[in-house]
Amino acid sequence: MTAVPAPRTDPAEPDARRYVDLPDGFSMWRGGTLRGARLAYETWGRLNRARDNAILLFTGLSPPAHAAASREDPREGWWQRMIGPGLALDTDRYFVICVNSLGSCFGSTGPASIDPDTGQCYRLAFPDLSIEDIARAGHELVHTLGILRLDTVMGPSLGGMVVLAYAALFPGGARRLASISGTAAASPFAIALRSIQRDAITSDPDWRNGQYSRERPPAAGMRLARKLGTVTYRSAAEWVQRFDRQPIRADLRQNTPFAPEFAVQGYLEVQAERWVNAFDANSYLYLSRAMDRFDLAAHGTPHSLWRRADLANALIIGVESDMLFSIGEQQALAHSLEAGGTATRFVPLPCIEGHDAFLVDTERFGRAIGDFLAA
Amino acid sequence: MTAVPAPRTDPAEPDARRYVDLPDGFSMWRGGTLRGARLAYETWGRLNRARDNAILLFTGLSPPAHAAASREDPREGWWQRMIGPGLALDTDRYFVICVNSLGSCFGSTGPASIDPDTGQCYRLAFPDLSIEDIARAGHELVHTLGILRLDTVMGPSLGGMVVLAYAALFPGGARRLASISGTAAASPFAIALRSIQRDAITSDPDWRNGQYSRERPPAAGMRLARKLGTVTYRSAAEWVQRFDRQPIRADLRQNTPFAPEFAVQGYLEVQAERWVNAFDANSYLYLSRAMDRFDLAAHGTPHSLWRRADLANALIIGVESDMLFSIGEQQALAHSLEAGGTATRFVPLPCIEGHDAFLVDTERFGRAIGDFLAA
Repeated sequence: MTAVPAPRTDPAEPDARRYVDLPDGFSMWRGGTLRGARLAYETWGRLNRARDNAILLFTGLSPPAHAAASREDPREGWWQRMIGPGLALDTDRYFVICVNSLGSCFGSTGPASIDPDTGQCYRLAFPDLSIEDIARAGHELVHTLGILRLDTVMGPSLGGMVVLAYAALFPGGARRLASISGTAAASPFAIALRSIQRDAITSDPDWRNGQYSRERPPAAGMRLARKLGTVTYRSAAEWVQRFDRQPIRADLRQNTPFAPEFAVQGYLEVQAERWVNAFDANSYLYLSRAMDRFDLAAHGTPHSLWRRADLANALIIGVESDMLFSIGEQQALAHSLEAGGTATRFVPLPCIEGHDAFLVDTERFGRAIGDFLAA
Repeated sequence: MTAVPAPRTDPAEPDARRYVDLPDGFSMWRGGTLRGARLAYETWGRLNRARDNAILLFTGLSPPAHAAASREDPREGWWQRMIGPGLALDTDRYFVICVNSLGSCFGSTGPASIDPDTGQCYRLAFPDLSIEDIARAGHELVHTLGILRLDTVMGPSLGGMVVLAYAALFPGGARRLASISGTAAASPFAIALRSIQRDAITSDPDWRNGQYSRERPPAAGMRLARKLGTVTYRSAAEWVQRFDRQPIRADLRQNTPFAPEFAVQGYLEVQAERWVNAFDANSYLYLSRAMDRFDLAAHGTPHSLWRRADLANALIIGVESDMLFSIGEQQALAHSLEAGGTATRFVPLPCIEGHDAFLVDTERFGRAIGDFLAA
């Protein structure tokens, strides 16, 4: 079940992950089944007796379930300043569950996992992955934990799409929904950018049609994909403030033709280098394509869909400088929820950090989410 | 002198190019010299007796000198609807010269040209290329044509940077300046995007440190670079109108893993395919880097610079949806011209086609440029 060639797991490293087995023969949305699949997740806070204080948190494309530190794993999580006692996701009050997406490579079953039918990694034999599968796997976890109805289903970015699928697939499954910098259907611009990232990987000869070795992953393609990702996750305005036209840091200089010369290029290099050995390339391809394909309209008209979902409240947050999931998409989503009879709070934020603002501007996001949960 | 592995030139094809030899030992801005270099150019209209009706037009990164049809070459040019009798660049009135940039691969000397010292293609032995070199080579052409002062020096995109260098380097060399969707210095966002395009090429094993063969250019890297270029040249809003989430055209479908599925991906494929055999990879790398490096501030403070340039008028056009050369950059440029005493017309256009709008929305651009020239 270990990821190949995904991140090395050192048994001495702290680890707060728990696992849940998916039902054997888990049917995938576009066909195919998974045998012996499982999900990795982490939790913070306590499930109350009524089992009605759970927040299920789906992640963006690349983070693991480790959203915040805990006794078992004191390392900072990807939403460290948002989850904890007195924070926006107040663990004195809520039982927060963060799930590593089905198809990812941080403990949940994905293309880098062993196919029990062959004893080999799935690689491209992994069945087609849909946003709906990620939602349905998360629902299995909720079910296993004995939770009949979530207080809130929440997620940013890819997770902001998953929560919509969750609400569509499981009427009454959550009292509230919070979709953060997500969309009901990717724009052609986002599709174009993501498809170029996938092309960078699949055109790297080391990708070998998905049959790359642990020692030789498609590093050049992964680096390009991450660099482009980094550009699309931030904004031009932020980079004028952060980098302007400063030269590259001396320690990042390279002695190669057309080597990076500006600070912003050094930043891209560092981001790419960190990522290339931390994420499985096939897993990335599957998750990225799932984002392009998702279209909430497949689940019915907004009116019928949201009526059926039976949500008490919804929170839709967007960022004005987000080029990948534009604020117009979140606004349209909020309108459709309202039109379907869901009391909806739409919070457009003026952050300059682009799509990634939810990771950076935790003050604004914390306030918006904390206020919503407390309301 | 022929480009290797640049576009095949069929002697039977129409050709309106003329050539001018640069002075032997042409000194490059950042060091190095060129022996036996030349520029390709085309012209429309007639130079008047006073030799004061010339418009020198620099191009964007990739177009050739063939900006419009002529008797010698009746094929459509890249600015076909802008140059001609009664059009914005009115050839009944002006003598229009379009120059293929030094460093390009459509007849002017560049990395794909033969180095007379070795008899081999320059490739990476081509000296460092700067926007200033493109301007200075253009000025040599003007000088050779016996023109003491241009009526207007004009250019879009990369050409919009070259005209600024031209004005800075040749005080009094042009009566008027028109910089279209250009900038005085690239933003870190634009640098990031262009550097990823260069990385795509240099990390393609077929690039072979610039020593690729004519038969096997770094096609995968060039395709990626062009796809990303295409995204940055247009806008998200335009693509919602043009493509939305339509599926790919049946004839563009591929039977490969992670093959394109949406119309916008088919568009990227077509653009990439057209380009990959039409442009020399090394030439692209040199021109792209020159854009990142250019900084008009190297020529003095805006005040001293524009005083010295001695322009009667300037036109600065920008497009609100341009993510690569943002409207704020053109506005700042217009302000600096005004501050330096140049009567400046700043025209922000609401086109939705992004950076490429100057190629597409010839109605708006034609009016802005025609009005300026007629004033």
